[in-house]
Amino acid sequence: MPEKAASSAVEIFDTTLRDGAQTEGISYSVDDKLRIARKLDELGVAFIEGGWPGSNPKDAVFFERARAEKWTCARIVAFGATRRANLKPADDASVRALVDAGTEVCAIFGKSSVLQVQEVLRTTLDENLRMIEETAAWLRGQGKRVIYDAEHFFDGHRLDSDYALQTLQAAVRGGAETVVLCDTNGGSLPWQVESATAEVCAKLGSVPVGIHAHDDTGCGVANTLAAVRAGARHVQGTINGYGERCGNANLCAVIPSLELKLGLRALPAGALTRLHEVARFVAEVANLAPDVHMAYVGDSAFAHKAGVHVAAMQRHPDAYQHIDPAVVGNEMRVVVSELSGRANVVSKASELGLQNVDAATGAKVVELIKAREHEGYSFEAAEASVALLVRRLAPDYQPLFTLLDYRGMVSRHGARSLAEATIKLSIGGHEVHTAAEGNGPVNAFDMALRKALQPRFPQVKDISLADYKVRILNSNLGTAATTRVLIDWHDGGQCESASGEHRWSTVGAGGNILDATWLALADGYEYGLTKVERADPSALSSNQPTTLAR
Amino acid sequence: MPEKAASSAVEIFDTTLRDGAQTEGISYSVDDKLRIARKLDELGVAFIEGGWPGSNPKDAVFFERARAEKWTCARIVAFGATRRANLKPADDASVRALVDAGTEVCAIFGKSSVLQVQEVLRTTLDENLRMIEETAAWLRGQGKRVIYDAEHFFDGHRLDSDYALQTLQAAVRGGAETVVLCDTNGGSLPWQVESATAEVCAKLGSVPVGIHAHDDTGCGVANTLAAVRAGARHVQGTINGYGERCGNANLCAVIPSLELKLGLRALPAGALTRLHEVARFVAEVANLAPDVHMAYVGDSAFAHKAGVHVAAMQRHPDAYQHIDPAVVGNEMRVVVSELSGRANVVSKASELGLQNVDAATGAKVVELIKAREHEGYSFEAAEASVALLVRRLAPDYQPLFTLLDYRGMVSRHGARSLAEATIKLSIGGHEVHTAAEGNGPVNAFDMALRKALQPRFPQVKDISLADYKVRILNSNLGTAATTRVLIDWHDGGQCESASGEHRWSTVGAGGNILDATWLALADGYEYGLTKVERADPSALSSNQPTTLAR
Repeated sequence: MPEKAASSAVEIFDTTLRDGAQTEGISYSVDDKLRIARKLDELGVAFIEGGWPGSNPKDAVFFERARAEKWTCARIVAFGATRRANLKPADDASVRALVDAGTEVCAIFGKSSVLQVQEVLRTTLDENLRMIEETAAWLRGQGKRVIYDAEHFFDGHRLDSDYALQTLQAAVRGGAETVVLCDTNGGSLPWQVESATAEVCAKLGSVPVGIHAHDDTGCGVANTLAAVRAGARHVQGTINGYGERCGNANLCAVIPSLELKLGLRALPAGALTRLHEVARFVAEVANLAPDVHMAYVGDSAFAHKAGVHVAAMQRHPDAYQHIDPAVVGNEMRVVVSELSGRANVVSKASELGLQNVDAATGAKVVELIKAREHEGYSFEAAEASVALLVRRLAPDYQPLFTLLDYRGMVSRHGARSLAEATIKLSIGGHEVHTAAEGNGPVNAFDMALRKALQPRFPQVKDISLADYKVRILNSNLGTAATTRVLIDWHDGGQCESASGEHRWSTVGAGGNILDATWLALADGYEYGLTKVERADPSALSSNQPTTLAR
Repeated sequence: MPEKAASSAVEIFDTTLRDGAQTEGISYSVDDKLRIARKLDELGVAFIEGGWPGSNPKDAVFFERARAEKWTCARIVAFGATRRANLKPADDASVRALVDAGTEVCAIFGKSSVLQVQEVLRTTLDENLRMIEETAAWLRGQGKRVIYDAEHFFDGHRLDSDYALQTLQAAVRGGAETVVLCDTNGGSLPWQVESATAEVCAKLGSVPVGIHAHDDTGCGVANTLAAVRAGARHVQGTINGYGERCGNANLCAVIPSLELKLGLRALPAGALTRLHEVARFVAEVANLAPDVHMAYVGDSAFAHKAGVHVAAMQRHPDAYQHIDPAVVGNEMRVVVSELSGRANVVSKASELGLQNVDAATGAKVVELIKAREHEGYSFEAAEASVALLVRRLAPDYQPLFTLLDYRGMVSRHGARSLAEATIKLSIGGHEVHTAAEGNGPVNAFDMALRKALQPRFPQVKDISLADYKVRILNSNLGTAATTRVLIDWHDGGQCESASGEHRWSTVGAGGNILDATWLALADGYEYGLTKVERADPSALSSNQPTTLAR
């Protein structure tokens, strides 16, 4: 039952990489940030706030690398503060860093609350207004589009609504294209947000108004929707609700409610079905366990446990669900829908460039994926492993190599550490037995595997591990629990495949770290080597491998 | 800024033991249920819904045992359905089971939605009204107080508001003391809940109205508050928001907002400060990791990571928090990371109960933290390692044990994997050399370390690893990069320290996974063992350790 709305579209401004990075427990690498940004661009958000270039060198590197990429939907945004008191914007290194980031759009935050201006900034109310206006104007003069974040707006509005409005007007005078009302401390409730936002929308006329909510009362999503009901048309938030303290408004809950309940377009047509996958992907890259109970996209969001619910669902599919879960790419979990699962796999396979995947193979892959996920795999961020899973079901599938035995050893004697691994492979019917040292047992294992593969597949020298992550599952068992390993790979741009792909990810799970690592390593090398093969069929023409023991 | 309200108190109806038990991943024993019920009674909720006696034998046993206990504040409630169609209440075994449960209060649910009556119940609209009225009346005749849960009320109200109201009136005619509006599928939004609740309150006059919300749009808390604003004075929910699918309205967020923001009494005076402890307790008994980002009671709810926030908090304590965390029994925390300054560390040290940390020591610790973070450590989630870092700078610091050598071995021969570790420690001037097998190299290493420590520190048996995470840094180097290990620990509630602390976290970083693991393990055991020592100085009195090689 969509609500009536003045305008039918809302701009989504994602801050998973900036405010989300302030989550306790998250520490993104620059590569992590780029992977998430690419995923958000595919999803179709309007803005991706990449970081605060003035605050740390890692964020500066992110912007440098982001400039070299093509972005389809999203504008990359650099975040920073208004100039310091009694300084020209051009003389403030952190304002200059915004320009150096080289983005089309900058988001700057300033103070809206008299308390914050006087007690925290310790400057005058007038100087604060000048700081806002002059910073926006200077950035406009440098050719930037400016989004103004009014920090502590709702608290400031309760203390002195006139002054809070003046700060917004200063930003508009400076040339800000949108003013964003921030519930920085997260203490506001929906009806407070709704009435203050309605007042701002009325006073600012045609200037677009945005909302930036936090979840400190558990109302981050509701506050965001309340602001939109009052006229806001720009929404800031993060995937999975990551963010400082209790987190930001969770875009994975906000976006579906905007589209499905308020009838407002937030993403490009068809993109909503990718939301479940995006939520899982971001959690994997952030190396956090996904919240299975999350609204809309949690794996339990449409899982039915109570007997009475399950019985009712069999009589009427909507008996205990408020939307069709497929709309957000999720699925109902009690009555396992073979059809939707199978169709998903078939479409995934064609996404991955694997043709000739029929419905029967699709069903087998669904079964395998469900069994492997039960063992501890997680395929959401490991598409190369999914591709191999499909490929291995083909009647003419030929593995490249088979692991026979391995042994890893690591020791420390005083200050000296030593790690060594031996490996025995079967490659093209021949047994290869070799050993290598490494920086640790996993590295030694990788070195030995490379050494074994090199004579037969000289291209392994171009394949390298970009990232290696381990998670222990059933964590109440501590180090005795199941181990999951995720490996990100790249080929340094050396092996251009048909699809121009240079990065891929694989997963393995097992009772110990080397068993899990082995599976992820084997997938990674096999995918990397056959990717080349697809691009240049002559490269591996004499390949006659035996079966792969898995 | 409390809102004006018609009545100044709200009845809290906790369903952690009934709807909460429908959470995927929760399986309470009868003892678990009783422990939680006692805790809720201490907290001072008005009602504790214990289970559905007609649905399973475990719940029947719970009510039997609950009858034998004294309850200070709370009424224990048995839950069940209205009678089946075309049956007398007295002839319906599941209605009789409600009486057999022997509670003063029963909660019964019935259908409010024409769709649910016709499609799921498959009976007539009139028979449904009779089922509601007759079940309530029969239970009243058996001397029970009756609370009526109007299942799917909001969905039913949107479909046919007249009929939805008739179902409530049937319950009132049958003698229900309160009618509870349930957003069973969780798809409603706050303004929809508010307007429907206001309508019901107006139509039912003096009959108390309740709210039962779910979190399927992420608005469970906001929907509950919206209903209270519209006149509801009975609130159902669960501790930590446990419940079917996305969970129920989280009482840990609802109660503080009712008391602190709406000015309504929900718990006995002074009880609010116990909320943080109750949330942790219920999570421990449910055997689920507490959600650290939960509103009000999460351990990160008042944790500040961004440098700019920390600096502002020093100028004004409310710069980045919406309430004083002590009001809900929580506390402000500074997250120590590469962005920290000296003041952060000094304030952190006093948070950790380490006195006598002067500015010079603070500066040394900052220097150490920056150096270690440069090596790959991350201290923000490893407070025990920060505490030890400070403690080791004290002139009288005495380590418990020193690692001399170790060796780890892992091998696979066909399908068989084997992992073994040897370890040589110096403990109290004596050399201990031992070995153990494990599930993998890290587990074997932990087993050997425990075995070496056990004779001297028998309390190690109570210390266990709750979670183990690995991250490879400088990830462009793949497995040859720096390895960071984070370990979460708990002592199973066996070793009550002075501060009542049962969980701690440590970090280690090194060139290989075992070197990194060693450092995190050593910190974890040392912290766990000396935590006991602080609580009971006699426990480790003969300790004469040598230096710890780091």
